[in-house]
Amino acid sequence: MLLLSVGPDLPWLMGYEAMPLERLTMLVVPQDDVASLVIPAFEVPRVVEHPDVFKIQGWGETDDPIARVVNKAGAAGTLAIGDHTWSRFTVALQDAMPGRTWKTSGQVVGPLRAIKDEAELAALRRAAEGVDRIAAELQSGQIPLIGRTEADVSAELGTRILEEGHAKVNFAIVAAGENASSPHHHAGDRVIQANEVVLCDFGGTTAEPHGEPGYCSDITRCVYTGEPPTEFAEAYAVLQRSQAAATAAATVGTALQDIDRVARSGMAEGDLDQWFLHRLGHGIGVEAHEDPYLVEGNTNLLEAGHAFSIEPGFYIADKWGARLEDIVVATDAGPVSLNKASRNLAVVEA
Amino acid sequence: MLLLSVGPDLPWLMGYEAMPLERLTMLVVPQDDVASLVIPAFEVPRVVEHPDVFKIQGWGETDDPIARVVNKAGAAGTLAIGDHTWSRFTVALQDAMPGRTWKTSGQVVGPLRAIKDEAELAALRRAAEGVDRIAAELQSGQIPLIGRTEADVSAELGTRILEEGHAKVNFAIVAAGENASSPHHHAGDRVIQANEVVLCDFGGTTAEPHGEPGYCSDITRCVYTGEPPTEFAEAYAVLQRSQAAATAAATVGTALQDIDRVARSGMAEGDLDQWFLHRLGHGIGVEAHEDPYLVEGNTNLLEAGHAFSIEPGFYIADKWGARLEDIVVATDAGPVSLNKASRNLAVVEA
Repeated sequence: MLLLSVGPDLPWLMGYEAMPLERLTMLVVPQDDVASLVIPAFEVPRVVEHPDVFKIQGWGETDDPIARVVNKAGAAGTLAIGDHTWSRFTVALQDAMPGRTWKTSGQVVGPLRAIKDEAELAALRRAAEGVDRIAAELQSGQIPLIGRTEADVSAELGTRILEEGHAKVNFAIVAAGENASSPHHHAGDRVIQANEVVLCDFGGTTAEPHGEPGYCSDITRCVYTGEPPTEFAEAYAVLQRSQAAATAAATVGTALQDIDRVARSGMAEGDLDQWFLHRLGHGIGVEAHEDPYLVEGNTNLLEAGHAFSIEPGFYIADKWGARLEDIVVATDAGPVSLNKASRNLAVVEA
Repeated sequence: MLLLSVGPDLPWLMGYEAMPLERLTMLVVPQDDVASLVIPAFEVPRVVEHPDVFKIQGWGETDDPIARVVNKAGAAGTLAIGDHTWSRFTVALQDAMPGRTWKTSGQVVGPLRAIKDEAELAALRRAAEGVDRIAAELQSGQIPLIGRTEADVSAELGTRILEEGHAKVNFAIVAAGENASSPHHHAGDRVIQANEVVLCDFGGTTAEPHGEPGYCSDITRCVYTGEPPTEFAEAYAVLQRSQAAATAAATVGTALQDIDRVARSGMAEGDLDQWFLHRLGHGIGVEAHEDPYLVEGNTNLLEAGHAFSIEPGFYIADKWGARLEDIVVATDAGPVSLNKASRNLAVVEA
């Protein structure tokens, strides 16, 4: 029995996104029967029922939605709760059904979501093309950097992401100079100067016709606001070669940790591997980060239809940092990068 | 022991918002010791440590963050998990600590969060003033309606919410004509016509200085695009009186369900109570909906410092609907409405 609420599994399965509020929305999916969508009665008009697939169970303001789910969940058997389901609901369900075994939807749905079909790949491709155009504007200087705050550039990236066919901005990291040494830097009031690196990592979720889930974009490019010092240019060249080698190594049947190792050994040139602080990449789909993860210890094999980031980086505290990220799809004919924006270190004039 | 991750409790407590990603961020709060923030090592630069309040425990990409939390959680005692914590983490923690008793943070922190102090009330007031200005623009026709899609107006409301000092748009419901009969209508492609009701319910979370959590706004106003039919105007007058009566009834010491009853009995005039499909209101603070809830069955008493919505409505399927919503604060001197935009049915010329 699968129990799905907020989070990406529900839109992926049925095109409806639960409202992230205290009134429970939950799809109860038995192994061999029609599913039930337990939903606040006054949100019923938001959903189109498909009685052969799922029936709607509206609950009123003084009803107990937990009891509705329990009633559908049967008396025995393992329950797989949605990965992102709010714990307040999970704990209430556990209290109401003592002695049951609990798993999470990722263990059930994760491997299915990880293999993308043609329509999903088309959506990921459109998403990548959108952020590629924004990356090109950063690289050509059409989106100015010098003299602006990181937060201001981040807001412009957000606006551009929405203009490029996305319904939602997931993140728009803009990290200048020493801030680029913090991989998840929060864009702030720091004003971008001449002669420094500006790391931009941004993406969103595409807008799709009603009833279709959106798919995510995610790209990182670095721009130098002036001629880069030799030390930085050389380090970036190592990064670029490492990223290319890891992309080439992403062939079907390769262990996921081995792709991470290829990137890491590429970064060992010039001892940059000590500053490569995170895993190589993550899967991407309806969720910005999902299976499969390219990380040491993951001995699962790359499969055709996997879509994932390849994003090595180096981060030297109080000094600078860089990352280069594309979304790549594994196919039987070899890896295909969905992002095509130039991977060179862009230089904009001070 | 309190375990907080994504969701509003963590920013409310310490001003830091966990990234909603698969890498666990969790604050472990013992009853009588310094707290520990378990956080991805490369996100440590995002946080300023306060060693007297909490210590930072960075975990590397191949470490197990669940083991870090278990190590801090001790061998016995009840664990209260954050209401919004992703269930994948909760189930993993439960598997690692069998036999423990689990509660949710709402049971611990909810009553504390429900009573607002002066600084919190000031933030809620600023939030209300921002959306009041937008409501006035809707009512005066400065934000045009006729000929535009609901989605287009919703997007403009979102932009205005951000311009009015909010960091985030929480929702911007725009429901025209028969769509106004769906309380949580999703603004879509329907074009707004002359001579119909347009229900607008919108709010966001304020931008506050770094390290301070934002507070929410939430307001509903209705505009008629032409002279309203008598039937609608009369129903709206009942709604307006019901909302005023419920606001006046929101005195300290009153049972929360009794305020709901006052509104409902007001709506009984003209038999509108049968179309009042939802509870009267919800608390508001760092979260758009939080304790206390004004709903039948809630016998808790209103306390000074409670901030909450008063929002009766009527919803007649396939025909029309209306709602009138203010944020109100309970004080020892009586209820104070933070929203001051006109509560009359605004008429804009066709």
